[in-house]
Amino acid sequence: MISTGAADRPLHSHTVRLTYADTDPAGILYYAAWLPMMERLQSEWFFLQGLRQDTLAERFGFWSVTRAVTVEYLIPVGLFDEIRIELRIGDVRGTSFSSEFRMLRLRDDALVGRATLTIVTVSPEGDSVPVPGMLRDRLSAWRAFQRGEAEDPVGR
Amino acid sequence: MISTGAADRPLHSHTVRLTYADTDPAGILYYAAWLPMMERLQSEWFFLQGLRQDTLAERFGFWSVTRAVTVEYLIPVGLFDEIRIELRIGDVRGTSFSSEFRMLRLRDDALVGRATLTIVTVSPEGDSVPVPGMLRDRLSAWRAFQRGEAEDPVGR
Amino acid sequence: MISTGAADRPLHSHTVRLTYADTDPAGILYYAAWLPMMERLQSEWFFLQGLRQDTLAERFGFWSVTRAVTVEYLIPVGLFDEIRIELRIGDVRGTSFSSEFRMLRLRDDALVGRATLTIVTVSPEGDSVPVPGMLRDRLSAWRAFQRGEAEDPVGR
Amino acid sequence: MISTGAADRPLHSHTVRLTYADTDPAGILYYAAWLPMMERLQSEWFFLQGLRQDTLAERFGFWSVTRAVTVEYLIPVGLFDEIRIELRIGDVRGTSFSSEFRMLRLRDDALVGRATLTIVTVSPEGDSVPVPGMLRDRLSAWRAFQRGEAEDPVGR
Repeated sequence: MISTGAADRPLHSHTVRLTYADTDPAGILYYAAWLPMMERLQSEWFFLQGLRQDTLAERFGFWSVTRAVTVEYLIPVGLFDEIRIELRIGDVRGTSFSSEFRMLRLRDDALVGRATLTIVTVSPEGDSVPVPGMLRDRLSAWRAFQRGEAEDPVGR
Repeated sequence: MISTGAADRPLHSHTVRLTYADTDPAGILYYAAWLPMMERLQSEWFFLQGLRQDTLAERFGFWSVTRAVTVEYLIPVGLFDEIRIELRIGDVRGTSFSSEFRMLRLRDDALVGRATLTIVTVSPEGDSVPVPGMLRDRLSAWRAFQRGEAEDPVGR
Repeated sequence: MISTGAADRPLHSHTVRLTYADTDPAGILYYAAWLPMMERLQSEWFFLQGLRQDTLAERFGFWSVTRAVTVEYLIPVGLFDEIRIELRIGDVRGTSFSSEFRMLRLRDDALVGRATLTIVTVSPEGDSVPVPGMLRDRLSAWRAFQRGEAEDPVGR
Repeated sequence: MISTGAADRPLHSHTVRLTYADTDPAGILYYAAWLPMMERLQSEWFFLQGLRQDTLAERFGFWSVTRAVTVEYLIPVGLFDEIRIELRIGDVRGTSFSSEFRMLRLRDDALVGRATLTIVTVSPEGDSVPVPGMLRDRLSAWRAFQRGEAEDPVGR
């Protein structure tokens, strides 16, 4: 275990400038706009880690579905603001885990929004199953990386 | 006050058939898909009631912003399922109120999802203000209609 | 063949009120907004006619892919305008056909936009194939309905 | 004039990995998905060049509206493909100009799609006006950059 001092690191992030698709006639963020960015970030992270959502059932005998989403809008943002969206893994429970997202405005690093996805692991038929060991190990390694207790999120 | 016996009525609803925009390569609902439907339903309701969001500040000296969203995905739905999304007003508090949404699958009336928007009232400058009396009266009338205690949601 | 006098009828239509998702900070239609409405209308039409896109390959040995889209924005529309979007079948050629869309503003029936999708028929492996007879017959029956030469679009 | 030999350079580009929002239950690109990416790229380019669309009318006495879009889908792309979308300026005419987009698959540099936006310049009231000299000069400088005849797109 290597402490890098970089506690609370995100696993993955994207930077995007808000444009017309993301904002409404009042010039502020359209509240639905964060969700596709969250999906894009998390899907790419799992893909980069070898866990394509669309092959999980076939390869590992389970897959996952989103059970709940909560989003908080903390500071209004608008047209042409640059935002960094960050992914972290939150709690890991018996049959579910959560992904945590932070949205930061680049010019002042202000936390403008945050969100949590609750994800349940299911059998190929869709029944809830305990989080499989393989995934649980990954989630633990990723959390160790976030805390600065591992040098890279693969956790080798 | 007229009791119609129709307690728990929605204020407004839309029916939509899920198609490719709403579903993902697994053939199930893309989790971000509910939010634009929620926005469309609520914006139309306020518009039909004479409360265009984009003219509130000028006409009434306040407007509103979304503070939080929570969505629960209860039953998986997929391509070509017909969904009715319903709007109700939930709690009304000092400086905020909530909109409640239910998503029902038409063929069996199953509750497949639900969501809550927390909305805060703000000054034209964006500072939190108590829910103005004019809006509070409307919200109360709408809630009376939902409970079957008023014949129409205008609350006259 | 029955002439109903109702030449140039649409096959199918949806009515939608433009809200925040569809409009930009200038208060006018976000130009990408028509495409999901077009997809929703056409997918539902084919579904209602027993031609689910996702089962075509298995059931009929072909499927279809979009080859091109053109959209014209004729009259600016904005927040809370009610729009009727209409679907018609256009040209049917050797290996492709087109879907024609008209967007009409409800309050004055003005044609505010129009669009064409060019769709090619392909083998399950994705190679271009002549429009199969079964589909060609349907498209012809639908066009006869549009011209008022058939009572219903099933063309029996 | 400096020839860099880098003819046919894009003005601006974004790279994105296609995820669930962009693909449909057949696992291939949802045809509406390119348009928000096109808007994001072009809006950012004009913003970075000091031409915020939402301030053009006030600052320069004109603004612009999209008159037409054409998109061609040349090669099917799907989940997790990485795409680079490139912006170039096309023809500049009396009262309009066009933006040209190319979509390239990163792993093999294949041209998978292309698109053209036709944009008209209008008065603050929305009437068509000749492309103003200020904008015409910019468009010319950008085209010179694209052809490798200028070192940077600001055209000084």
